[in-house]
Amino acid sequence: MLAGHQTWKFVNPPVIVSTATVVGPEEGKGPLGDHFDIVHEDMTLGQDSWEKAERKLMEEAATLAIENAKLTKERVKFFVGGDLLNQIISNSFAARTLSIPYIGVFGACSTSMESLALASLIVSSGAADYAMAGTCSHNCTAEKQFRYPTEYGSQKPPTAQYTVTGAGAAVLAREGDGPVVTAATIGRVVDMGITDPFNMGAAMAPAAVDTIQAHLRDLGIEPDHYDLIVTGDLASVGYKIAVELFAKHGVPIRKTRYYDCGLMIYDLDKQPVQAGGSGCACSAVVAYGHLLKRMRAGELKRILVVATGALLSPLSYQQGESIPCIAHAVAIESGVDA
Amino acid sequence: MLAGHQTWKFVNPPVIVSTATVVGPEEGKGPLGDHFDIVHEDMTLGQDSWEKAERKLMEEAATLAIENAKLTKERVKFFVGGDLLNQIISNSFAARTLSIPYIGVFGACSTSMESLALASLIVSSGAADYAMAGTCSHNCTAEKQFRYPTEYGSQKPPTAQYTVTGAGAAVLAREGDGPVVTAATIGRVVDMGITDPFNMGAAMAPAAVDTIQAHLRDLGIEPDHYDLIVTGDLASVGYKIAVELFAKHGVPIRKTRYYDCGLMIYDLDKQPVQAGGSGCACSAVVAYGHLLKRMRAGELKRILVVATGALLSPLSYQQGESIPCIAHAVAIESGVDA
Repeated sequence: MLAGHQTWKFVNPPVIVSTATVVGPEEGKGPLGDHFDIVHEDMTLGQDSWEKAERKLMEEAATLAIENAKLTKERVKFFVGGDLLNQIISNSFAARTLSIPYIGVFGACSTSMESLALASLIVSSGAADYAMAGTCSHNCTAEKQFRYPTEYGSQKPPTAQYTVTGAGAAVLAREGDGPVVTAATIGRVVDMGITDPFNMGAAMAPAAVDTIQAHLRDLGIEPDHYDLIVTGDLASVGYKIAVELFAKHGVPIRKTRYYDCGLMIYDLDKQPVQAGGSGCACSAVVAYGHLLKRMRAGELKRILVVATGALLSPLSYQQGESIPCIAHAVAIESGVDA
Repeated sequence: MLAGHQTWKFVNPPVIVSTATVVGPEEGKGPLGDHFDIVHEDMTLGQDSWEKAERKLMEEAATLAIENAKLTKERVKFFVGGDLLNQIISNSFAARTLSIPYIGVFGACSTSMESLALASLIVSSGAADYAMAGTCSHNCTAEKQFRYPTEYGSQKPPTAQYTVTGAGAAVLAREGDGPVVTAATIGRVVDMGITDPFNMGAAMAPAAVDTIQAHLRDLGIEPDHYDLIVTGDLASVGYKIAVELFAKHGVPIRKTRYYDCGLMIYDLDKQPVQAGGSGCACSAVVAYGHLLKRMRAGELKRILVVATGALLSPLSYQQGESIPCIAHAVAIESGVDA
């Protein structure tokens, strides 16, 4: 372990022995639709509230990830999870169903990589043979809680983003086959004074760049170390800002090797998603569904997933506060011995 | 590290090199008032909202804990924190002020020991020389968010609890003087079907007992290993239920060695706190203020702090859900070499 920095370099890199992704209809129609394990056609999943539907997404992803790892849930010692809902109820109630010792976390949409980083630390440090990370989001619960009543059908500016309906889970193990987590960088809170909650990408881009620079500096590597660096959900507005910031700060990231999960999950020309995807599930399902499949197929060897989160609440916004943001990065590599 | 259980036994026990506690007027008037570092006479702390006052409690505790450790904040590599407010804004905004890489967590009132457990794992595993755990709560923000508008002055049943106004922070180090964290047990979610949010103690007691039994079983020790076991905020109703459950499950805990922070922080005969204290700050300020002072004075050698959390949201309650609960336990011992 590399102490003295904000990056954990795992001496015993934990193996991602399985993942599972569950999404809603809009995500199923998107360009990565075939890469998700379960695509629901019904946003309610047969539940009587959207909140219960969101919880069910998480329960399905977690259960399937454990099955895919050929484990029983009793062998998975810790579940690290969180989501966007107040008091992270989707994950807490899913943890009740799973009955696995539970570490609730919150980093808004950065929760995906925050949970993966912590689950990796737990396994790498020897605190468990198996641990699971998971997160979820649902378009209708997020709209309802953060914006307007969903039925209201409010119009949105083109800078707004579309919350992904989905859940992703990953099981980490001390030994096994699969890509490994080689390092994780915990972000600082960065606040550039942006107050428009319909322009999260612009608010979050500086946090993503800050964490990526810290990651490269702490490990003494160049961006080309990775075949692909993806941010979580900057979408079209934030992505452009991030590219500009890399240039301004002299970070030599090639445009062909940097992309954003919020731009990958939907076809922005054809789907009604404004600037692109957001939500905890955005980076989770793109990373666990799409990117890890490409790693297993040998198309990618080293990736850095930088999940971005806007740490506001409706109340902090109403009280005139700007939007504090954070990004957590996890490096995943294949062909490395665990 | 002891893998295969829900308890982490730290081979390199991290040292609690400093703590700091900040409270409001009611806590200052209570029996432990003298043990807190800062007692505010004004619930607003001079801020224009209670939410900003709560954030300031956290900022003060964190800043003072770092000062007490004779460190600069740059040397504290990670801040693990969370609170009761939606999107844990108190801690996220405090993390913005502190500018320390930030791991946001949520376990309702169990956040105090969840954050201490994770910060301990980070330091013990060698991922940092110094890490800080912190949490806070404020009576008026909690009333407003979880119950009724604060100005409404609604009456409460005697089973209700009084949210502590305060914040506690602890700095953990690989080396140094002070009590050490020897083990931490991560709880499972336990839900006994209780739906009354004015009787949290009864809902949380089974989770506390479940975690304590897991802790004793995982480490192969008896309750008498500890001079004192304290639960976080079961208060008078939940405390009695916990004592009954220990008897029913054959856990030989002596009544003189088991108590509850929610009963310790106020004088229930004289203060208007119904069944006793609750809130993330309850176990944090009692543990970091009162109990660690007693350990440093040699009055206590080994304690187990079992923080309890009710993982409901107003929405989950309104949708007819019962209250899932959790408890995380941290063992602190003095006279053990780090």
